[in-house]
Amino acid sequence: MGRWEPNARGRLEQAALELYVERGYEQTPVAEITKRAGLTERTFFRHFTDKREVLFAGSGRLEELCVAAVAAAPTTASPMEAVAAALDAAAGAFEERGDLVGLRQGVIDSNAELRERELIKLASLSGALADALRGRGVAEPAAELTAESAIAVLKVAFRRWIDGGRERPLRPLLAECFDVLRTLSARGAASAG
Amino acid sequence: MGRWEPNARGRLEQAALELYVERGYEQTPVAEITKRAGLTERTFFRHFTDKREVLFAGSGRLEELCVAAVAAAPTTASPMEAVAAALDAAAGAFEERGDLVGLRQGVIDSNAELRERELIKLASLSGALADALRGRGVAEPAAELTAESAIAVLKVAFRRWIDGGRERPLRPLLAECFDVLRTLSARGAASAG
Repeated sequence: MGRWEPNARGRLEQAALELYVERGYEQTPVAEITKRAGLTERTFFRHFTDKREVLFAGSGRLEELCVAAVAAAPTTASPMEAVAAALDAAAGAFEERGDLVGLRQGVIDSNAELRERELIKLASLSGALADALRGRGVAEPAAELTAESAIAVLKVAFRRWIDGGRERPLRPLLAECFDVLRTLSARGAASAG
Repeated sequence: MGRWEPNARGRLEQAALELYVERGYEQTPVAEITKRAGLTERTFFRHFTDKREVLFAGSGRLEELCVAAVAAAPTTASPMEAVAAALDAAAGAFEERGDLVGLRQGVIDSNAELRERELIKLASLSGALADALRGRGVAEPAAELTAESAIAVLKVAFRRWIDGGRERPLRPLLAECFDVLRTLSARGAASAG
């Protein structure tokens, strides 16, 4: 496996995101990423399948984190409280990554193929949350609706967080979106359906 | 533009969907579709850009229908009631298409690229609904959250409708999902966020 490079993965990610922002994702070959990171292409491909994976490698970890949080929520927690705990865990992971989150989102927003990939990852997260809720005994359609609502809250709160330059932390933005969703839902719809 | 073919578009769509189900989407060339429909390839390409568009040409119309319903909702309607009216209009269009809806969904479910395309169309519908709500004076994040909730309800109710062989009509399934969403949201989440 070659010699150990201190924090090679993090250095590659940082270099890749900087270059994707500076020159555009499509215009950045792997060779440029490794040059900036001071590492070899062989090292790059030990960590990532391709240059797109630099942007999406974290999605799997995020999903695991969210699923674990749903499973760990108190048995007294309602379905919506359980997914709120999942988004709370996700918010912690996003806040920890700091500027990288904003850089990454800028790259994704500027490329249609990457935006599609992001939608697929969110659909996958929704499916995983619904599974985790079913694992807590939540029936259908409540499990799927709760999972989809969580994704809605995450999308809207995350967008506000990024667009606001991350000045307000993500957690209160998530809480606010859950509150707004409750108010909106209370002002019913079924009678019109 | 060549001679007029009675209901050419409908015949092409019917033939395409049958063949996509029987032989698989990827294994069906346009020539087979036109052969079954008893029409020429030239006629096909007057109606559709390619064989994928047969599956997604209706999405634009659906979006227009939904946006118009939001705009036409009474001024007293809450945001959630306005999107419920949109889904009600959508349900009418789906019910009208009958078996074609089930055939289409089977084709989409069996192909990853088509599933991705469907996610993109739903994201587009969500954006259009949020725009229509903003047009009614709904502020953020309520507009986006309402639109995303509507998509959640549509996805879950539509899936139940199809999986149940369309025995229960779509409208009560939509109403039920709005009800469940209200109950779920009422059992709060913000305090855990």
